[in-house]
Amino acid sequence: MLYNRAAIIGIGLIGGSFALAAKARGLVDCVVGCGRSEGTRNGALAIGAADEVTDDPAFAARDADLVYLAVPVGSMPGVMARIAPALKPGALVTDAGSTKRDVMRAAAEHLPDAAFLGGHPIAGSENAGVSAARADLFIGHTYVLTPGPRVSDDVLARFRSLVEGIGAKPVLLDAESHDAALAATSHLPHVVAASLAAAVGDVRLRHEASLDLRDLFGNGLADTTRIAGGPAGMWRDVLEANGDNVRVAIAVFLERLRALDAALEAGDMDAVQCLLEDGRRARGELMRQ
Amino acid sequence: MLYNRAAIIGIGLIGGSFALAAKARGLVDCVVGCGRSEGTRNGALAIGAADEVTDDPAFAARDADLVYLAVPVGSMPGVMARIAPALKPGALVTDAGSTKRDVMRAAAEHLPDAAFLGGHPIAGSENAGVSAARADLFIGHTYVLTPGPRVSDDVLARFRSLVEGIGAKPVLLDAESHDAALAATSHLPHVVAASLAAAVGDVRLRHEASLDLRDLFGNGLADTTRIAGGPAGMWRDVLEANGDNVRVAIAVFLERLRALDAALEAGDMDAVQCLLEDGRRARGELMRQ
Repeated sequence: MLYNRAAIIGIGLIGGSFALAAKARGLVDCVVGCGRSEGTRNGALAIGAADEVTDDPAFAARDADLVYLAVPVGSMPGVMARIAPALKPGALVTDAGSTKRDVMRAAAEHLPDAAFLGGHPIAGSENAGVSAARADLFIGHTYVLTPGPRVSDDVLARFRSLVEGIGAKPVLLDAESHDAALAATSHLPHVVAASLAAAVGDVRLRHEASLDLRDLFGNGLADTTRIAGGPAGMWRDVLEANGDNVRVAIAVFLERLRALDAALEAGDMDAVQCLLEDGRRARGELMRQ
Repeated sequence: MLYNRAAIIGIGLIGGSFALAAKARGLVDCVVGCGRSEGTRNGALAIGAADEVTDDPAFAARDADLVYLAVPVGSMPGVMARIAPALKPGALVTDAGSTKRDVMRAAAEHLPDAAFLGGHPIAGSENAGVSAARADLFIGHTYVLTPGPRVSDDVLARFRSLVEGIGAKPVLLDAESHDAALAATSHLPHVVAASLAAAVGDVRLRHEASLDLRDLFGNGLADTTRIAGGPAGMWRDVLEANGDNVRVAIAVFLERLRALDAALEAGDMDAVQCLLEDGRRARGELMRQ
């Protein structure tokens, strides 16, 4: 047992999976789940992700040794302000947000006296909500940890054990590096996938009379646009928090696509093939293939 | 039995899968496989995709009732020229190329007296080669048919039965509509996935000292770039044959991505969310979700 009582604020896909995994491995004794909707709260109780539920973050945080914030990053400051007066001395507060600079800033402002450990489990699904929660969601996935100034080595080591206990691989990273990296590996792909899906829809509209594209695509388009099915509201927050890095990543991507388009325009098929090979090689290196 | 003797010119993933499926269902009696490499020929014999093998397209086509061209689209004209003098009167020639305007033009030029039926099974895999061939590759997938001027209704109906027999859904489409549609649903996603993978590699190089992106991505990037792992040489041919349509599709995509980038620059997060919702909705409509 690493923590007696954990409060999960926002007990959806990530918060619910974290609770299920930690409870299944005996790393946390009692979980208080906090959700805004009654459906979420009942769902969390039904699948055993929470022992008690509430819609009040401050009430959930009271007496908790671990407070886990799994709300959209845009809601973090408000939630932090609400739980601040209720925190038990010595409690660890951590989050599961997809961006870290904004979350660390919000913690410095609203939780100046608390031990705040930024976190980002790089795992997820296009399915949202506690009904999609799974105890094995984190197995084999990286879990970024960004310690705030009041996190001692002992406090970090304890939470690190919990991360390893649920099967994830902890990686220490500062907020700036995290946000620059994820802009390229997560936020750019989302923006590209959404634009691609929308563009295919646009082409379809242009040919409405003659083309029903719905029978004319394969697994390639389905895979390439899969993440575009994710919740737009959550991604809005992520893109707002990391807009500067995302715009840099978009610019790098546009350079690549424009080079390919220019080679097509010039009929320079050797250059086209080189650019395709660059993509293939870069993917292989990333995926360690 | 629909055809006694079929020649598969280019017995790789698609040609091999077609042969396996047609033989398994008793729709074709004997298959002659034609491959340039000894490894391919031996592989085709080993998995039972071919009863005989050769490296000579004209030899393979001789006496065949059905000649199936499954070579890269850039190789079609040369192969057609070679088989033309060897074709048995009344034989049906068909192809499995990813583009149709260029293939139909090549057939008109090199096989003016033959019954040529353009074809495109919209199925595949990032794995290439006869070793990846599977009898169930086409099940549930669309199979586009583009009849040339010498294909009679009877000849079309017979091949259509074969397509249905291997589990695919035949769709009649003219070459122009096919190429416009596939530019959006297949060729654009490939170009985007390759550019995305290359761009992530570029970002990685810019931060070489501090970032190892290899631990910092999730399933989203893996899915979004999966097709970038496909053979660059084959895609070069496709993009060359369909460059005009692909450039139109790229332009439509760039409009979408630029609008999103401009909204990010302006901090107009409502507009960002709208664009993400457009992508989500367009994907849902395409996938009939």
